[in-house]
Amino acid sequence: MNERSRIITLTTDFGTSDTYVGIMKGVILSINPKAQIVDLTHAIPPQDIYEAAFSIYAACSYFPKGTIHIIVVDPGVGSDRQAIVSHIDNALFVCPDNGVLSYLLHSAESAGTHPIDSVAIQNAAYYLPEVSNTFHGRDIFAPVAAHLSLGVPFDDIGPRVKTLVRLPIQVPEFTGNTLTGQIVKIDRFGNAITNISETAIARLESTSTAEMPIYEIRVGSTRLNRLNRAYAESGIGKPLAIIGSYGLLEIAINGGNAKEGLGIKWGDTVIVQRFD
Amino acid sequence: MNERSRIITLTTDFGTSDTYVGIMKGVILSINPKAQIVDLTHAIPPQDIYEAAFSIYAACSYFPKGTIHIIVVDPGVGSDRQAIVSHIDNALFVCPDNGVLSYLLHSAESAGTHPIDSVAIQNAAYYLPEVSNTFHGRDIFAPVAAHLSLGVPFDDIGPRVKTLVRLPIQVPEFTGNTLTGQIVKIDRFGNAITNISETAIARLESTSTAEMPIYEIRVGSTRLNRLNRAYAESGIGKPLAIIGSYGLLEIAINGGNAKEGLGIKWGDTVIVQRFD
Amino acid sequence: MNERSRIITLTTDFGTSDTYVGIMKGVILSINPKAQIVDLTHAIPPQDIYEAAFSIYAACSYFPKGTIHIIVVDPGVGSDRQAIVSHIDNALFVCPDNGVLSYLLHSAESAGTHPIDSVAIQNAAYYLPEVSNTFHGRDIFAPVAAHLSLGVPFDDIGPRVKTLVRLPIQVPEFTGNTLTGQIVKIDRFGNAITNISETAIARLESTSTAEMPIYEIRVGSTRLNRLNRAYAESGIGKPLAIIGSYGLLEIAINGGNAKEGLGIKWGDTVIVQRFD
Repeated sequence: MNERSRIITLTTDFGTSDTYVGIMKGVILSINPKAQIVDLTHAIPPQDIYEAAFSIYAACSYFPKGTIHIIVVDPGVGSDRQAIVSHIDNALFVCPDNGVLSYLLHSAESAGTHPIDSVAIQNAAYYLPEVSNTFHGRDIFAPVAAHLSLGVPFDDIGPRVKTLVRLPIQVPEFTGNTLTGQIVKIDRFGNAITNISETAIARLESTSTAEMPIYEIRVGSTRLNRLNRAYAESGIGKPLAIIGSYGLLEIAINGGNAKEGLGIKWGDTVIVQRFD
Repeated sequence: MNERSRIITLTTDFGTSDTYVGIMKGVILSINPKAQIVDLTHAIPPQDIYEAAFSIYAACSYFPKGTIHIIVVDPGVGSDRQAIVSHIDNALFVCPDNGVLSYLLHSAESAGTHPIDSVAIQNAAYYLPEVSNTFHGRDIFAPVAAHLSLGVPFDDIGPRVKTLVRLPIQVPEFTGNTLTGQIVKIDRFGNAITNISETAIARLESTSTAEMPIYEIRVGSTRLNRLNRAYAESGIGKPLAIIGSYGLLEIAINGGNAKEGLGIKWGDTVIVQRFD
Repeated sequence: MNERSRIITLTTDFGTSDTYVGIMKGVILSINPKAQIVDLTHAIPPQDIYEAAFSIYAACSYFPKGTIHIIVVDPGVGSDRQAIVSHIDNALFVCPDNGVLSYLLHSAESAGTHPIDSVAIQNAAYYLPEVSNTFHGRDIFAPVAAHLSLGVPFDDIGPRVKTLVRLPIQVPEFTGNTLTGQIVKIDRFGNAITNISETAIARLESTSTAEMPIYEIRVGSTRLNRLNRAYAESGIGKPLAIIGSYGLLEIAINGGNAKEGLGIKWGDTVIVQRFD
């Protein structure tokens, strides 16, 4: 990594009602007083590695090169799960090796990003002097990230690891004129975000022989037959499909909450069908 | 604006459970790594322009001159609503032109603050390369604010606009010995804040011929006949009226929640009546 | 205090849905634009001085020397309660004199930390020009802390005070082979944290004549007979006892919520009994 950054982001399931996040910031600033710490989110549902994996994947490209991302969603803390630093696409990710980088790794490999380097965190010189069994965010991840932000070489952290733990990532499937995906994230507005990208829909279109193919988008009992360009194109309270800010197909309700209004939940199947 | 500031505040209805706010910070820091970003609030109720308008109005005067305030409460995102930068009283406001500056404009005009300058955001050179239809906070407002914080001239952002969208702002009315106002904000303690200022109450007093006029303050079925100087002047659990930290009349319960305890809601009428 | 720091932490019961916290940050940055402000927590239950006292005690040692901690949990705001700055163990604490430093003072005195110096905040030159009766966080605590971060001498703030308000702090008691403590904090995961330290348990063990004493840990109707080293040592959904990240005995459920699952609440008695 040629560029150095003093920006460190935090993604955790700690919430902000306790002082755990503040304590991690104290640890970082004790090591690098010039670190600029950005909260990505602390509202990952407790121990929800999928949600954390999607969140860091969808957010990290908006940060400057050299940013160091700490992710602490760590149900295995205190067990023998490995801790890692991964270098992916000009950023460093400091986290447990529990699949939390799965979306990022899938995306980087699809894009042919090289190299993806990872080390196991093993050099206790970069930990706090005492390491608890329950809060590696404070005792290991925060201080390791702070030392990295001071320019400690990646290879000083520990030995290279080749294979990281991977979650099974669902990828949309094409079957003839049909694209089948899943809801991978529901945001606080109740917008339901799918894993179906704008590119995938364009590919579905490109295989049509019709001049103007018609689409139907289905999730549960909801059927939509157009792709909005803006929420406001549909009437207030009406369901709609739109390519959202992630570049992914979203199901929303204009001025409302699609999760509640349409009964959508994480993992639900979403079908985009083309009628020629 | 003669003074430059690296302070950028954020006021949104995004909540903090998703990564939307963190992503905006990443965009800002990618453009100006020295920006100091302050969260004003991200808990504006979704699409509640009134609440956002009151929040930014009540908070901005506590920031240094030259502070840049981003406000993203934007139900019309993706429609043809205009985006603006307004220069009011030594600060810049970067936001949709949807009325979110109404309290500020009303106050600045009442105070004779000059000039109030506004430009329409139209120069795509200061946007992210790709602009979505759903997240202008990330694609337009954050990068424009970051460029402004680097010293980009106000006039480079777009052409001047003379007339901004205004919400109808309710202003307290005098009728003889009675002052009629409204609840404009309920805070997390359940304190109900009115639009009746300390100055308005002083004016009500100044028109009395009595040596010691008596007051009654009414909201719903609650009647109060004095103005506290401190919450603790009333017994625990007792309702009270006080000039609160906004310089506005508040209805509160000492050690309790006036919203719940007294059934007060946004927009409720509040009457201050003088008995000579 | 020989070392100066630009780090200022905030611990309040303001929540983050209103702009109160953002306003305090604006006040600080108006006085010291280089201050680095860290949110410790704003989710102290309204006016819960015990929770605030535990939170600042448990967190402050992770911050750099010279850090300035503002604590605003202040049910007596506007009454004649005193405001103070305390210098304890290389940090400054700016807060109402209402017992919020009780755990810290108890700990510092137990450890023989010297000296503990305190001054009453009385020099209005370091306040905002106008001081409200309801928001001393903005008008007094924030500006005083910001001035201290610029190097204003401690003694300029006001006269020395010898005796601070103290809450009755419960301390675990030994009776023969039994250690009796209390739940002092329940975190967002539902982990119930006691005031029983690892050291106290070691002391209980040291007075045993048995080679391998057996323990029983009791809270409510829950009985546990071992101390885990990791949450994951117990089956998913199983209750467990562990020395947590505070160095204190915690009652938890692996992958679950001990508060809900075991019906534990703040103040509950926890007994560690040794069977020789």
